[in-house]
Amino acid sequence: MKLYTSNRAPNPRRVRWVMAEKGITDVELIEIDIMSGAHKTPDYRARVGVPHVPALELDDGTIISESVAICRYLEALHPEPNLFGHDAREQAIVEMWTRRGEFYLANPIMLSVRHSHPALVALEATQVPQVADYNRVGAERFMRTLDRHLADHEFIALDRFTIADVVATVGLDFARLVKYRPPEEFTHLARWYEASRARPAAAAGA
Amino acid sequence: MKLYTSNRAPNPRRVRWVMAEKGITDVELIEIDIMSGAHKTPDYRARVGVPHVPALELDDGTIISESVAICRYLEALHPEPNLFGHDAREQAIVEMWTRRGEFYLANPIMLSVRHSHPALVALEATQVPQVADYNRVGAERFMRTLDRHLADHEFIALDRFTIADVVATVGLDFARLVKYRPPEEFTHLARWYEASRARPAAAAGA
Repeated sequence: MKLYTSNRAPNPRRVRWVMAEKGITDVELIEIDIMSGAHKTPDYRARVGVPHVPALELDDGTIISESVAICRYLEALHPEPNLFGHDAREQAIVEMWTRRGEFYLANPIMLSVRHSHPALVALEATQVPQVADYNRVGAERFMRTLDRHLADHEFIALDRFTIADVVATVGLDFARLVKYRPPEEFTHLARWYEASRARPAAAAGA
Repeated sequence: MKLYTSNRAPNPRRVRWVMAEKGITDVELIEIDIMSGAHKTPDYRARVGVPHVPALELDDGTIISESVAICRYLEALHPEPNLFGHDAREQAIVEMWTRRGEFYLANPIMLSVRHSHPALVALEATQVPQVADYNRVGAERFMRTLDRHLADHEFIALDRFTIADVVATVGLDFARLVKYRPPEEFTHLARWYEASRARPAAAAGA
């Protein structure tokens, strides 16, 4: 299998982190330089279908894009350590929190950074300051919810580390590009965040 | 089990549609009037954790929010007709297309409508016209990708109807609130869209 990936980009980093947690080393990494537009070439688009990284190419040529879909596929091949839940109930709780972390934290942060960081102007047709502000405010609203939840939970979804922790941590880390830090009043969030990014696997793709 | 739902809202409709495809009738429906803010009351927030519908309450009191997480849980209880894929490879393809339909079509359409429809001013702290425009343009970019894909695929993800078709159809239907229709040049998209919304189960929650 081959993984089309891009160092320092947040969505590929989710996959690299999951691979590191699971000790997966048999996937060939192919670096795509998104800053020079390598994900928008006709060749890449024809292969992957959309101008996005990451994408996993299976040995039969099937392409899987979307980072969480790739991670779930890798979990099917390498079930332990379990990151998506053992049974239907756990899986539902993990997916709920993963999606909350994506929709209300990671995606708003990504849009906010892409619409405000001078160096990322190449990634957007037009940077719209209102889009940046709107999304930062939305992300902070969810940080408050998450901070309350983490007051009595060590991890986000279950009583162990899961893909939900990966997604939320990578989301917050991406905001560091614009020197953003979560408001200091969110002390439970801060405790969880530091523990999560201190994991050895967190360095993969970062 | 109980489903907190809201008629005509797009995310609850995904769940209602899946329940209808699977013939699930043993879930109690509890209507939440989002136009009057019933999803923002202290009671609802304390129960669900976030001010969102839909949410599924299991018999042990566990809450599952996020519509696709709920649908996947229902699939575990009622495996047929299969909507999420039979094996790891199918599941990855379905999740990829479901996520593309959410991130690049349904979510942009929802934001565009919420930031432009006069009657939905109650749902947003501030309606920002730039957010509406930015998201409509993004949704149409993905419609072009989807139209090309549907030129030689009957359904979006597999050779049968899946959750990916539910998500994309409900997304496009929501835009009808502002009288929006996809550009007529997307003839393959139009063929798939009409077939999808003609399914008997499509009426559930609509």
